[in-house]
Amino acid sequence: MPELRKDPILGRWVIISTERGRRPSDFTPEERKPAGGFCPLCEGNEDRTPPEVLAFRYDGTPPNTPGWSLRVVPNKFPALRIEGDLNREGDGLYDKMNGIGAHEVIIETPLHHETLATLPLKAVELVLRAYRQRVVDLRRDPRFQYVIIFRNHGNAAGASLSHPHSQLIALPILPRRVREEIEGARNYFNYKDRCVFCDIIRQELQQRKRIINENRFFVSIAPFASSFPFETWILPKMHSPNFAFMESFPYEEAAQILQDTLRRMNQVLTDPPYNYIIHNSPYPDRDRDNYHWHIEITPKLTKIAGFEWGTGFYINPTPPEEAAEYLREAG
Amino acid sequence: MPELRKDPILGRWVIISTERGRRPSDFTPEERKPAGGFCPLCEGNEDRTPPEVLAFRYDGTPPNTPGWSLRVVPNKFPALRIEGDLNREGDGLYDKMNGIGAHEVIIETPLHHETLATLPLKAVELVLRAYRQRVVDLRRDPRFQYVIIFRNHGNAAGASLSHPHSQLIALPILPRRVREEIEGARNYFNYKDRCVFCDIIRQELQQRKRIINENRFFVSIAPFASSFPFETWILPKMHSPNFAFMESFPYEEAAQILQDTLRRMNQVLTDPPYNYIIHNSPYPDRDRDNYHWHIEITPKLTKIAGFEWGTGFYINPTPPEEAAEYLREAG
Repeated sequence: MPELRKDPILGRWVIISTERGRRPSDFTPEERKPAGGFCPLCEGNEDRTPPEVLAFRYDGTPPNTPGWSLRVVPNKFPALRIEGDLNREGDGLYDKMNGIGAHEVIIETPLHHETLATLPLKAVELVLRAYRQRVVDLRRDPRFQYVIIFRNHGNAAGASLSHPHSQLIALPILPRRVREEIEGARNYFNYKDRCVFCDIIRQELQQRKRIINENRFFVSIAPFASSFPFETWILPKMHSPNFAFMESFPYEEAAQILQDTLRRMNQVLTDPPYNYIIHNSPYPDRDRDNYHWHIEITPKLTKIAGFEWGTGFYINPTPPEEAAEYLREAG
Repeated sequence: MPELRKDPILGRWVIISTERGRRPSDFTPEERKPAGGFCPLCEGNEDRTPPEVLAFRYDGTPPNTPGWSLRVVPNKFPALRIEGDLNREGDGLYDKMNGIGAHEVIIETPLHHETLATLPLKAVELVLRAYRQRVVDLRRDPRFQYVIIFRNHGNAAGASLSHPHSQLIALPILPRRVREEIEGARNYFNYKDRCVFCDIIRQELQQRKRIINENRFFVSIAPFASSFPFETWILPKMHSPNFAFMESFPYEEAAQILQDTLRRMNQVLTDPPYNYIIHNSPYPDRDRDNYHWHIEITPKLTKIAGFEWGTGFYINPTPPEEAAEYLREAG
């Protein structure tokens, strides 16, 4: 059973996956998977994944067989286990609990060689639809406090399979970084009676120095204090705390700006590895006025990871105004 | 002039190095430097670095000539500039200031092919001596609130030069991660009237599950909530808030345990890339009782950077008890 352990100084929880137990030899320089090798996420290999928990299928095809345009399956090597109780306990000054949670893979398309940048717009809409359905479903489980949706693209960004997929992890605790963002937004609201993200959007639309693109419902920007070169945020223009619990979700515009942003990055940075994370309120009702969901995309271009990991101090060699100009002029 | 910018939500400062202005083409896959290429840090090339600010030299050798065993020089491509005023200012809801600070390189030895693991112990002592002298000196400048000392070893850990060197950055602000650690330790002290690090050392020395090695004055452990596989902390056994302002510093034991730890890592993980950071109190007088300086070493073995960067949520595949056992049995 994986374990959740709390850092006694920082109060940050860490997953220790005691079952995968990696030995030193597992960290020797990567054997890259041969490009033509077996892919468990491809159509026809449905029996090589755990049974699907959601699928968009052509009429009449039974579960876990070909005939799907998107599948969601539990991760075969999950960081957390779905069955069991949390069993919170102490060990001297340390705190831990069982690593209970969900870890799922959103297989975005049966087509191995496509990407979110190349798929038809409708297929990108389906991906967003699946994200929302899974969040709503998992939030019904009272053991879970937060669902993170993220996408790793490319080996350097941590993707171990090249078939297009996203992941989600449902957690029994609120990750520290999420809590800090919520608290930062709440503090701003308490002081100004305005949402900090709405204020950012207003100022950016006025100054137009860091705008990358916009459509009717969304805007993409290079944030003022970008931690990484070419970091990009996609924000809904209308205030909206929760991605999954919005009443009417503008799928077409959301898919359009997400795809457009990834295409611009591909053009300017030549198909860079990247991560994106959907930043969402953990509380569908609370923080209604002061939190604003959005997507943060970070191409993985620099290598100074360890130092910045350890200090939380980031050195970004590309001013966001310049990054925005490159991305704005692309496409 | 580089700029320091504050994230309006997280309150985190970021260095935007507006002068190095990296274009997209600068991020194309790395051209590794040829192994036999020119090294500006080698003996005889003293004129290829900015003039030294500290050096340990053989008697009679003039500054910036051969004849040294260690040199400290300003970074030729500094993330921050030493000259100027902070000029704090706002831009709408954003806050920024000039990127004033010091960025120095500690050239640990004239010998290009040595490492901290292979140098004579006396040479490692000199490195620690240089760290302390530079911190004491830079803390006299009232513009600086914190001096970070760190070491990147290996290309994957962000080292752009292979000649043995450490770096330091003096900052006009306290990095968020440092503040959080200080606050966490302060909260613990306020509740228990004991230093959290002293409590950790006590419990670890009793349980002996996560101890790697110890000598008279120091202990090395795999921390209970390690964020990374084979993460290792070196802690002084006696309570001591500040590395640079300790009255009598046990150089020999500090150098011994640092070198011993790096040698064990080399043996178990085959010369892994790593980062280490000296965690130090920013306040030589305040936090005297509740903070405890230490060194955190993180081998760079996994690649899931982006997700964990973005969420602050770490998945560690190697339980620290197992990492400690491997490292304990090495050497």
